[in-house]
Formats: sequence, C-alpha cells, structure tokens
Amino acid sequence: MTSFTIIGTGNMANAIGGIVADGGNDVTFISQSDTGTAPLTGDVVVLAVPYPAVDSIIDAYSDQLAGKIVVDITNPLNFETFDSLVVPAASSAAAEIQAKVPSAKVLKAFNTTFAGTLATKRVGDSDTTVLIAGDDAAAKQTLAAVVEAGGVKTLDAGALSRARELEALGFLQLTLAVGEKMSWTGGFATVR
Amino acid sequence: MTSFTIIGTGNMANAIGGIVADGGNDVTFISQSDTGTAPLTGDVVVLAVPYPAVDSIIDAYSDQLAGKIVVDITNPLNFETFDSLVVPAASSAAAEIQAKVPSAKVLKAFNTTFAGTLATKRVGDSDTTVLIAGDDAAAKQTLAAVVEAGGVKTLDAGALSRARELEALGFLQLTLAVGEKMSWTGGFATVR
Repeated sequence: MTSFTIIGTGNMANAIGGIVADGGNDVTFISQSDTGTAPLTGDVVVLAVPYPAVDSIIDAYSDQLAGKIVVDITNPLNFETFDSLVVPAASSAAAEIQAKVPSAKVLKAFNTTFAGTLATKRVGDSDTTVLIAGDDAAAKQTLAAVVEAGGVKTLDAGALSRARELEALGFLQLTLAVGEKMSWTGGFATVR
Repeated sequence: MTSFTIIGTGNMANAIGGIVADGGNDVTFISQSDTGTAPLTGDVVVLAVPYPAVDSIIDAYSDQLAGKIVVDITNPLNFETFDSLVVPAASSAAAEIQAKVPSAKVLKAFNTTFAGTLATKRVGDSDTTVLIAGDDAAAKQTLAAVVEAGGVKTLDAGALSRARELEALGFLQLTLAVGEKMSWTGGFATVR
C-alpha cells in the first residue's frame, strides 16, 4: 500500500483522493490553513493547491519533503490575463519546484485532466488518462500503479522537462474551458 | 469556393488536400522542388513542409504571400534530439513566420493532428478536430469553413500567440508516437 498526503481540499484534491482511495491506498488531506502544523505522513505528497500557494508550502515543509515523491498538479497561469504563464517560458512550475526541493522526486501529473474527468474516469467516449512526467522512473511507476489501481489510465509523458509541454496543454485546455469552447467534463483525451 | 495552394507533397500535404477537395474546394500542390517557379494561385497557402524549409519558401514568394491566408502546420522540433523546439521558448514557428511576412494572415493549424487522423477523420472514438489559432478572425473562419465542409471538425484555439501551446501539444504528441507510447492513428482528441 502506498500512503498519500494531499495538500488542498478543492475539487482536484478530492478527485485525486477519490482515485487513491478507490485503489485501496491510504490518503490523508491537509487543508491550506493547516499547512506547516499537520505532519506529512505520506510517501507521496500531492500539491493540490494553486501555483501561488506552492512556495509557502515548500517553506513550511522543506525538511519533510526531502526524499519524498512530490506531485505537482498546478497550471501556473496568469489568472488576471488568462493569456500567459507566470513561469519562465523555457521552464515549468514542476521544474521550479524541483529546483527548490532538489532531493524530492518531483512528478508532474493531473494538470491535463479536469476534476470532473477524474471523478467519472471518462473524457467523452475515451478513458481518462493521467499524463505523468518526471526524472525518477521508480517514482513515476509508484504513482502510475496507484492511479491505475484506482481505475484511471496513465501514460508516461517522459522526463520532467516535458512538464513544460504538459503545462502548455493544461493552459490551452483551461483557456478553452473558460472561453466556453470546451466543457469542464471535456478536454484533450489521450488516444493510443 | 475557396482555392488552396499547398506547398509540399508529403503525407500531411495529401491529407489536407484531401479534406479541401472533399468539401468541394479547389486545391493545387506545389512540390518543394518547384518552389519559386510555380505561381501561388490560391487564396489560402498551406506550408506543408518541415519547418527548416519554410524560410526558403518565404524568400521565394515574399511578394505573392502578401495579403494571403498562410497556414503554418509545422512542428519545429529539434529532430536530432527530439527533446526541444528550435524556436525561442516564448515564441512559436507561426509567430516567427508572421514576423517575416507581416502582411500575410498567418494561421496555425493541423500541427496537432497526425496525417492518419485527418484521412480517416477520426481519432479513436472521437471526431478529428483541427485546432486553429490566428489573429485574423475572418481568415480563421475561412479555413474552418473549408475544413468543416471536408467533414473534419475545427476549434478556434484563440490568438496566434496560442500557437506556442499548439506547438507544445504537437511536440508532446510526436515524442509519444516516436517513443511508441501512442500510435500514428492516435493523438490528443478534442472532447467538448
């Protein structure tokens, strides 16, 4: 069994927690207001918070994050303009997080799947597929096994450098949903 | 009727030409070797060539491209490493082309759909959808009308600045297909 600590209590936190529990794995939630006081007991820590909240979490838990699998699900949009990302163009939120916690095994995942498609495990006529990028192969396998046990497909999207492309995909998908050209139960489905 | 000139004679050129013809619109092909000598008769010019070939086409046709709708379908990968793009990280091939031919109405389209999915008009259980980005609304509508008449769905992906995200999506899709994690008849299907 793999134990998860999910920081955040929003739609995405709940949807991811549901998948972890569905596969028989252990999940604990920490609300943003309890960040720093509640201990990080999980082998896997999911940062299910908006990107601007990530820095304070890393500051609060830097020692405890060392060596853990840290899953970054953020889409680091400029939420004032919805027209750009707030991370450097050649980088990604995941790469910035990895740089701040070098000993953690950072994975990018869940940023290309809307909460509704994680809950139903379907995107239109296709299975929901979680795209996972990361540099630590064992960490990717651990996360993929838990997600698959929870009934959701996964696809290894490559090294952590591919987080840049995953975040571009997530950004595009969000602009389309906010612009009402795509529903929050839709998105880009992975067809193999 | 809208007339198309497609520069290139590869799989993508043929697939796009097939859609244009299916909708009852006119299409002429120019091979790369005839570039510069064959005239650009179409209202819409599709650059269905690898990105490194684009510059010489623009040089050969700069006067004739003025005012036309120019469709950039390229994925500007570094084909030696398959690990990055050759355009600046904050830019895109489409933006680079627009800067070189300022009076053309440049659209980004077809770079997120493999040739096989344009030919069959299906990606798995979903309809193939051509994502179109551009700054000229009328030009986007012209292209969308032709593609839809040819039996393929379209989606307005926003301004030409969104070409950066479309190229990231195309890049990711290509790395997955080359890595045999996705077939050339698959890809990211658009679910609304």
